[in-house]
Amino acid sequence: MNDIWFYENHTPGYEVRWKITDILHNEKSDYQQISIMETVEFGRVMILDGALQVSDKDEYIYHEMIAHVPLNAHPAPEKILIIGGGDGGTLREVLKHQQVKSVDLIEIDRRVVELSKEYFPSMAGSFADPRANVQYADGVKYLEECSKQYDVIIIDSSDPVGPAIQLFSREFYKNTYKALNSSGILAVQSESPIFYPQVFADTVRNIRTVYDNAFVYLTTVPTYVSGPWSFTIGSKKYDPSILSSDRRQINGLKYYNDKVHQSAFALPQYIIEMLR
Amino acid sequence: MNDIWFYENHTPGYEVRWKITDILHNEKSDYQQISIMETVEFGRVMILDGALQVSDKDEYIYHEMIAHVPLNAHPAPEKILIIGGGDGGTLREVLKHQQVKSVDLIEIDRRVVELSKEYFPSMAGSFADPRANVQYADGVKYLEECSKQYDVIIIDSSDPVGPAIQLFSREFYKNTYKALNSSGILAVQSESPIFYPQVFADTVRNIRTVYDNAFVYLTTVPTYVSGPWSFTIGSKKYDPSILSSDRRQINGLKYYNDKVHQSAFALPQYIIEMLR
Repeated sequence: MNDIWFYENHTPGYEVRWKITDILHNEKSDYQQISIMETVEFGRVMILDGALQVSDKDEYIYHEMIAHVPLNAHPAPEKILIIGGGDGGTLREVLKHQQVKSVDLIEIDRRVVELSKEYFPSMAGSFADPRANVQYADGVKYLEECSKQYDVIIIDSSDPVGPAIQLFSREFYKNTYKALNSSGILAVQSESPIFYPQVFADTVRNIRTVYDNAFVYLTTVPTYVSGPWSFTIGSKKYDPSILSSDRRQINGLKYYNDKVHQSAFALPQYIIEMLR
Repeated sequence: MNDIWFYENHTPGYEVRWKITDILHNEKSDYQQISIMETVEFGRVMILDGALQVSDKDEYIYHEMIAHVPLNAHPAPEKILIIGGGDGGTLREVLKHQQVKSVDLIEIDRRVVELSKEYFPSMAGSFADPRANVQYADGVKYLEECSKQYDVIIIDSSDPVGPAIQLFSREFYKNTYKALNSSGILAVQSESPIFYPQVFADTVRNIRTVYDNAFVYLTTVPTYVSGPWSFTIGSKKYDPSILSSDRRQINGLKYYNDKVHQSAFALPQYIIEMLR
């Protein structure tokens, strides 16, 4: 294993390469190719269908930002739904909120959860929490048939290749709307505005159509392709850039803080232009 | 030229590769290797000693952020000094401020300016402005012997390999302090906190020692290695996160706006910890 590299080819003209010290696991599940490797620079990583999803080095950035922004904008985030998120990182962050009473996590691929528990214990250590309820099902179908009402829905999907494609459609967002109560908030990961501008712009437009408004916020995750990473919120009542005065302080976070929350909604001019 | 790639090797375990469609120029100047290439994904790029410095695709992000943040924090930015910046991008942005009366630009390598004029006309189109005064000299020596007083000094250096190493030293920052008037502001590019954490932390510490305080602000430039890119300000009087009420509106910017200015100073927890 002296000179093995994993290549991530984002466009025909741009590649990122990680040097690998060990390939811990590699399988074709019923839904996708799952690989777990040790990298020199980012520690242990999980790769789904050739796209690097999480690394031990900075998974906290993505997971803190997808969870704490919608939950801290809501005064009483009690019933939470996560679609995807089989690595457990978003669940871990959501459960840090004392107000949360139950979390339904709908992951299509049981093997992602099982392998995350085995290889990423610090990320996947919250599945045993009594508030967590994991179902192995298709998130699209789950929401079509859903009769529950949630306070916050988080779409923690992999990239829109493989099983996640339908999680970016307008029809799907309509079903999230139905499954949220009258003050509910939807938060979705909406990809890199630089490398996947069409996915990003379509996601925002679809959410805007369904929710009347769409709120984009940004972070930057070194493991993900260079530049900003986007999330998009649809909200029935609350402006998600405003911290709820009812939120509880969470100690020990590594990325998120109040100023980061508010600042994440400040969009550069080029992104404002993309969304016009 | 069907399959030529430029590799940027940031650490022994992480590489970024750009596909090249044309090598326009390649020379060893008196100071460094200068290469100008056409890439598939980022357009035309300039590479100094193997480090990609600017691309046509997003040079505006870096240049708007290094220029407009210090200048809009100062009520009367009239006399400006730029050390480095031979590509002309920072000069172009600084000259957008009507209040600016003179800009001294001290670039060590005349060839960077000449080649930028030839190959990057939209970036290097401001050298003919009557307010601009370019000198080809060593910025370190220039500041050692400087008897002028400036309102804003911008250190627009290349990476701290090759001729730019001394531009990150405490001794150098002491000389910037002497060359600023009593309300002056210093702004420096201070590298990636993720890939060059030591350079970043040393820069902040050195500026803090000399200026009593150091203000870090962040952006993300897709051309530069993944994650945040940092700038650090030393300021004798003004809090640079606060926009001066005397600033003039500049139209047509592609990245910077008032909210971006203020939000850039919101640091994630992991960066706050790095600087403790």
